[in-house]
Amino acid sequence: MITLYDYLDSGNGYKVRLLLAQLGMPYRYVELDIMRGATRTPQFLAINPDGRIPTLELEDGRHLAQSDAILWYLADGTAFVPTEKFARAQVLQWMFFEQYSHEPNVATPRFIVRHLPADSPRRAELLQRLARGREALAVMERHLQSRSYFVGERYSIADIALYAYTHVAEDGGLELAPFPQLRAWLARVAGQPRHVRLLDRPTQG
Amino acid sequence: MITLYDYLDSGNGYKVRLLLAQLGMPYRYVELDIMRGATRTPQFLAINPDGRIPTLELEDGRHLAQSDAILWYLADGTAFVPTEKFARAQVLQWMFFEQYSHEPNVATPRFIVRHLPADSPRRAELLQRLARGREALAVMERHLQSRSYFVGERYSIADIALYAYTHVAEDGGLELAPFPQLRAWLARVAGQPRHVRLLDRPTQG
Repeated sequence: MITLYDYLDSGNGYKVRLLLAQLGMPYRYVELDIMRGATRTPQFLAINPDGRIPTLELEDGRHLAQSDAILWYLADGTAFVPTEKFARAQVLQWMFFEQYSHEPNVATPRFIVRHLPADSPRRAELLQRLARGREALAVMERHLQSRSYFVGERYSIADIALYAYTHVAEDGGLELAPFPQLRAWLARVAGQPRHVRLLDRPTQG
Repeated sequence: MITLYDYLDSGNGYKVRLLLAQLGMPYRYVELDIMRGATRTPQFLAINPDGRIPTLELEDGRHLAQSDAILWYLADGTAFVPTEKFARAQVLQWMFFEQYSHEPNVATPRFIVRHLPADSPRRAELLQRLARGREALAVMERHLQSRSYFVGERYSIADIALYAYTHVAEDGGLELAPFPQLRAWLARVAGQPRHVRLLDRPTQG
């Protein structure tokens, strides 16, 4: 059985949990307390030298890091990744957008607000990050003006990757009210079969 | 013929130019002056709503953004992307590492130093970004202790993606002297057939 090293409140980890639930794939869940340095121990750095969750452990003991690379590994060959060459590249385009323009500006403010002390010096980052987060949400809103899902009018791992932190963007201070297309898409994603929620603790497979 | 919208000093654009040169694939090159807002015009936003270079235009007029998604699109099915499922996911893992942990902390300091005024308020970002940039280089150094290339002991688009800004990291203030494995790998990449340099202006295909 595969093992997922994760932290329950991580949207990056949630992407993988959501896909695994929708694939109906059992897995062992190991929660690490990232706030107490559990991903920076020598033991964990031997598993993932970058010291981050989520990290996937295969049955044969090999490890894979980076949430969107894990999504691709688990989903390629299933209905969650298109088969046509250009559509596949578009899925990757939106996942790279997610990690470069969206996650640092939508997820990181949520992390700062929820997990760091009220007087943390990192609060000084919020103004710039939230401004860029609104730009990222506006790019998504424009794309969804004429579409139901991000690629090929079909739910894919591009939607899973972008849903994970978008649906809780307000936790970090990003209002979703100005983005009606985005809110309609969030509802479509949440209505997919076998949907699970961010803080649903996985049952051992 | 395909068209590449780009800016010559962009390492993200250079990734695509390097791969195209090594594939021997002709292309039309359109340089946009990102410092004068050429990627934020209504005309360019119609091509890429995210307003960034590089952007690839296919012969049929479709567009693809995000440098690492473009690399995957152009290289999949060639010797620059492995065929085995886990190795393919490892290539993506390193490309997501590049965009999340490396580019903002290795490329952005270079951009601030080379392209913004000496009194830019963005210089305040340098200390934190350079510290994280050194961490990203250290992760690469550890990985290369026992390897010649990032995935499967073979030159791939993972190496191209990471080479682009690593080889000019010193422009932004990140010394490479403490990273001997990294420097040996840089030399191996630069020694690949049909290598081109960052500021080599493409000849029209």
